[in-house]
Amino acid sequence: MRRTRFDHSPCPIARTTDLIGDWWTPMVLREAFLGRRRFDEFQQALDLSRGVLAQRLGRLVDEGLLEKRLYQERPPRHEYVLTEKGRAFYPVLAAMWRWGSDWLWEPGTGPAFELYDRDSGRPIRPRVVDEETGLPIDVRRVRVGSRRRDRPAGEPGGGAR
Amino acid sequence: MRRTRFDHSPCPIARTTDLIGDWWTPMVLREAFLGRRRFDEFQQALDLSRGVLAQRLGRLVDEGLLEKRLYQERPPRHEYVLTEKGRAFYPVLAAMWRWGSDWLWEPGTGPAFELYDRDSGRPIRPRVVDEETGLPIDVRRVRVGSRRRDRPAGEPGGGAR
Repeated sequence: MRRTRFDHSPCPIARTTDLIGDWWTPMVLREAFLGRRRFDEFQQALDLSRGVLAQRLGRLVDEGLLEKRLYQERPPRHEYVLTEKGRAFYPVLAAMWRWGSDWLWEPGTGPAFELYDRDSGRPIRPRVVDEETGLPIDVRRVRVGSRRRDRPAGEPGGGAR
Repeated sequence: MRRTRFDHSPCPIARTTDLIGDWWTPMVLREAFLGRRRFDEFQQALDLSRGVLAQRLGRLVDEGLLEKRLYQERPPRHEYVLTEKGRAFYPVLAAMWRWGSDWLWEPGTGPAFELYDRDSGRPIRPRVVDEETGLPIDVRRVRVGSRRRDRPAGEPGGGAR
């Protein structure tokens, strides 16, 4: 059964879902962010079938989040390296990390792991804010409206909602 | 074929994926954030099968992101209302919105929609930062380590990675 595709949706959330809604894909990206590059490294870390892993890596290459590079000629061996587009995805995983840590453990407990700043050693707690004001995003203050300017896709005028 | 479940994984990203990796679930949440509450409203907005929608809403209720409330007695009719846990998920969608907007449109174009602050009318651009410093999260500065303190799940000592 073919799933409904969202990759041409007008909504950025829908298009992103089309990519990471493939079961395993966020985990493949997580492992890439942990420094894995080779097929066997991903496979050992995730313990998933080689067929599924090959499909997920292939899609991430097709979508431009990973680049497939030859690191050995005989026999030919490739590694999968995050691109700028792929690295830019990390904040989405960081937001998932934060929400999961806060809400998906029993009250009074939490994951055994935390994010730390490599240099200072301080714990890092991801938070989603408005870039300009630095204030946390609160859905009750947000509306979705037509784009006003800046980009060719923009439409004049105010919001539809 | 049963999928591998991640809902008891030690990793918050994996647990979150177990929930939103269900195809359609991020879109159901998106519609809840847009103010939809009734089954038929979700169904009309998303144009998905009633069976799939019922399963997704049911799981979001089971997981505590939505609360099912009776709004009419005869015949009995329910609506689905975001809980605190559900509202707390919005930043994840906001991070997906930002990445999707930045990377999933052709160069020089972008989505026709933008997020706006309801009061000031200013565009809102979500960004994931470290809560304490306000600095953007950069994967190259982050490591995952054992939790040092604060929570019962914490382990003494430094990081494993």
